[in-house]
Amino acid sequence: MGAAPMAWVLWSRYLTMCPTDPGWPDRDRFVLSAGHGSMLLYGLLHLAGYSVSLDDIRSFRQWESRTPGHPEPFATPGVEATTGPLGQGAGNSVGMAIAERALRARFPGLVDHRVFALVSDGDLMEGVCCEAASLAGQLGLGRLVWLYDQNDVTLDGPASLSFSVEDVAARHRALGWHVQTVADGNHDLDGIDAAIAGAVAETERPSLIVVKTTIGYGAPTKAGKAAAHGAPLGAEEAAAAKAALGLDPETFFAVPAGVRERCAERAGEGEAARSAWYGRLERARTEAPEQAAELERRLGNGLPEGWDEGLPAFGPGDRLATRDASGKAMNALAARIPEFFGGDADLSCSTKTALVGFGSQSQATRAAATSTTESASTRWRPRQTESPTTAGSAPSLPRSSVLPTTCAPRCGSRRFPGLPVVYVWTHDSVGVGEDGPTHQPVEHLMSLRVMPNLHVVRPADANETVEAWRHALRRTEGPTALVLTRQKVPVLTTPNGPPVSSAAVTCSGNRIPPGRRW
Amino acid sequence: MGAAPMAWVLWSRYLTMCPTDPGWPDRDRFVLSAGHGSMLLYGLLHLAGYSVSLDDIRSFRQWESRTPGHPEPFATPGVEATTGPLGQGAGNSVGMAIAERALRARFPGLVDHRVFALVSDGDLMEGVCCEAASLAGQLGLGRLVWLYDQNDVTLDGPASLSFSVEDVAARHRALGWHVQTVADGNHDLDGIDAAIAGAVAETERPSLIVVKTTIGYGAPTKAGKAAAHGAPLGAEEAAAAKAALGLDPETFFAVPAGVRERCAERAGEGEAARSAWYGRLERARTEAPEQAAELERRLGNGLPEGWDEGLPAFGPGDRLATRDASGKAMNALAARIPEFFGGDADLSCSTKTALVGFGSQSQATRAAATSTTESASTRWRPRQTESPTTAGSAPSLPRSSVLPTTCAPRCGSRRFPGLPVVYVWTHDSVGVGEDGPTHQPVEHLMSLRVMPNLHVVRPADANETVEAWRHALRRTEGPTALVLTRQKVPVLTTPNGPPVSSAAVTCSGNRIPPGRRW
Repeated sequence: MGAAPMAWVLWSRYLTMCPTDPGWPDRDRFVLSAGHGSMLLYGLLHLAGYSVSLDDIRSFRQWESRTPGHPEPFATPGVEATTGPLGQGAGNSVGMAIAERALRARFPGLVDHRVFALVSDGDLMEGVCCEAASLAGQLGLGRLVWLYDQNDVTLDGPASLSFSVEDVAARHRALGWHVQTVADGNHDLDGIDAAIAGAVAETERPSLIVVKTTIGYGAPTKAGKAAAHGAPLGAEEAAAAKAALGLDPETFFAVPAGVRERCAERAGEGEAARSAWYGRLERARTEAPEQAAELERRLGNGLPEGWDEGLPAFGPGDRLATRDASGKAMNALAARIPEFFGGDADLSCSTKTALVGFGSQSQATRAAATSTTESASTRWRPRQTESPTTAGSAPSLPRSSVLPTTCAPRCGSRRFPGLPVVYVWTHDSVGVGEDGPTHQPVEHLMSLRVMPNLHVVRPADANETVEAWRHALRRTEGPTALVLTRQKVPVLTTPNGPPVSSAAVTCSGNRIPPGRRW
Repeated sequence: MGAAPMAWVLWSRYLTMCPTDPGWPDRDRFVLSAGHGSMLLYGLLHLAGYSVSLDDIRSFRQWESRTPGHPEPFATPGVEATTGPLGQGAGNSVGMAIAERALRARFPGLVDHRVFALVSDGDLMEGVCCEAASLAGQLGLGRLVWLYDQNDVTLDGPASLSFSVEDVAARHRALGWHVQTVADGNHDLDGIDAAIAGAVAETERPSLIVVKTTIGYGAPTKAGKAAAHGAPLGAEEAAAAKAALGLDPETFFAVPAGVRERCAERAGEGEAARSAWYGRLERARTEAPEQAAELERRLGNGLPEGWDEGLPAFGPGDRLATRDASGKAMNALAARIPEFFGGDADLSCSTKTALVGFGSQSQATRAAATSTTESASTRWRPRQTESPTTAGSAPSLPRSSVLPTTCAPRCGSRRFPGLPVVYVWTHDSVGVGEDGPTHQPVEHLMSLRVMPNLHVVRPADANETVEAWRHALRRTEGPTALVLTRQKVPVLTTPNGPPVSSAAVTCSGNRIPPGRRW
């Protein structure tokens, strides 16, 4: 209720989307990082004209409904990211903005959108959110806008209990962000509008808009209190809130006619934007056929012809670490798959994930990002345009590639939308005794193997490492983890051996829905 | 080599320690958060007179040596925290400072020390470090001082590749810290001294000292370069560096006489400080016997008499969630164990970890912290004075208590020093379907069970939950995780049933050294 005004201004005036074609590639992205406020998102989707009915909304938090307690792309058309674990949506939005910029440089006129996220106090307390914000500032992601719902209330009480000293606006300025504040986010729709306009006009830095709001705005006794955070208002308070907001307390699940009208207009504008985009794609097929074909290949989830022909082969006399074999395979793949790119933790010389000669993502080298970028300990190939935009794992990376559990929660989130992210984890286990026990993650392999839908491959030698990469690149329905040695191991197999079998990659069942339905 | 000047000023002029009694309770703490620079710490320990010989230093990174690649309290006298995974040591230092303040308020005259940490660029890039710094600012931890070795170099190259936009000093000011900068950390020992004096004089806010240094200072061709980060200099460069620093290139493992002299003086000062403290304790035995006895009980690792007599009992007719039973057990324990306290994620009303009537840690309520503090989803009982000071997991907490993997790496670090931290993880598994799949951590239980030395207890009902708490509180040699339901479950057992068996708590062997040796 407190975030509704800012959400309404954004959705009714700025967000370009096409509810009848939720997956239209060049739509703006909206991420509700504060996923516990999912009802706000479901309400917006319903009003905007997505396939979320009032009956779906009546089924809130019910088994197999389109409206689970926290948003899921596979469950609900128009939901862009799995959110709920705080900070994850904000991190995802940074990944989406990185992808947008890289694709915009590669496909000018065909990729040109913005990424908006609604973030909460709880998001901004999260370390992962600070890492993501630091990276966004570092890269100067001018298409990224965070609306910060500053209601100063947590589930346990006023945020002053735990979060009153920190100056979030000043922190983001220190991270290189453009920062604005709206003092009365409950009523000042013009102020919200002006701030979003200012954020959109800022093209060199990511934008944070601090919007001061009242949680449960309109509820006569619970507004501004923790009681409005995690529990229903109750019938009496809900009726009183409706009355206070000028609505009929006796009418349920109803939308004022004026709202319906404005939403229908907005849907029409979205349809027009989508049609114009398909018109540009059609023209590109004639005027820039290579570019159009390349974009369509990526949208169609395909790999380039001959993508795996440069992969290395190793003879029985060879002896090398599987991290080294992986590095050779990655460089061969990068030369043939332009969308092969990823994030790193300043450790590529140790993890052997540097892509030599391909350049790094930075403020100055945007075009480089279109081919292959960033030395990486985690790395993904966009299987479809949505993949890079939702992969977003770069800012969620562990700084240390030797401790996979640091990013296991992100890995866990990845499996829900079924994104084909590839994780490269090196310095496996007891082979790194000199580094001391903190660097011997003996239990992590088994921890990863019990994660549903994550394929875990621990190749025995260099040729199996190449096959593991082939498996990871072919996979479309979920993430793959490669677990690699630091120390040299002998080559035991011949090249181009049997493919990785599904029995070899996981010991748990795959009962997660296979990616988004829409 | 770049951090040596600041470390020398700190150790030779400020750090109060007693090398012949490394565990003396009221020593200052020094945490090398940048644990990959372990040789600096081993050198300091040797010079200061700890039981780290030149032979130990010659055994650097060798099997079972006292000088593993990353520092470990169980391996080396004087090492306060397991570090290496970046950000963890910084987080630990915040926990130590919280404990110092709480204990100082409870035991005036007997607890009165400072916590220093040396942090690197890589530490400060970590989200966990930002969370810890935010909490330190929130609580106004005036005894905490971070020396930031800003050498602008990562393993992969200049930090400008990834970390050039962010203004770390401004960020920490935004978090409520006192910030100073030393422009020439290679030579300006007086400037370092003045900054540390300023930090010590600041009692209301934690202090960050940004010390600009040159990595590999003194090495003629590798100084200031990534080549000096993760690999030995090599014989030729090492000889040239010695020559450049005015040392004899042909002399190995030698310490100048003047250094030895100053270190011996410093050790004498530490002995005197330790003796004075034991004198105060002896006086307290006469003048404040209750207080002295209480401190000695805690130092001796004991529980108060009758600590578990107030624990609740449930009859077969009862039906309640194990999170609720846990909450009742925790409040009963808190009433009898004053050192029972912990950290929380603003979710205590959901995890049922609120300790009703005991107050929260804050800038204004320091004394409250001495009894029992903070509603908590993770919670520890200090089994010895070192435990709260090294537990330090408060700032490392996940913000969401329902996703244990978010804090699994911290949990992993806890097992090395063998700290008896208790983790409370609620909303177990498939019982929370309405919240959506992100909130159904079906694989986490097994992931936790494979972690060596972590006891994982998943009680079936309320009485087993009480026994689980009894087990966790009795345990001294490592952490315990309690996995609890959100939904109501029937009581199946009678109260005071058999204790938790070790076979029930883990499926992996315990082959981790049992806590620190010194």
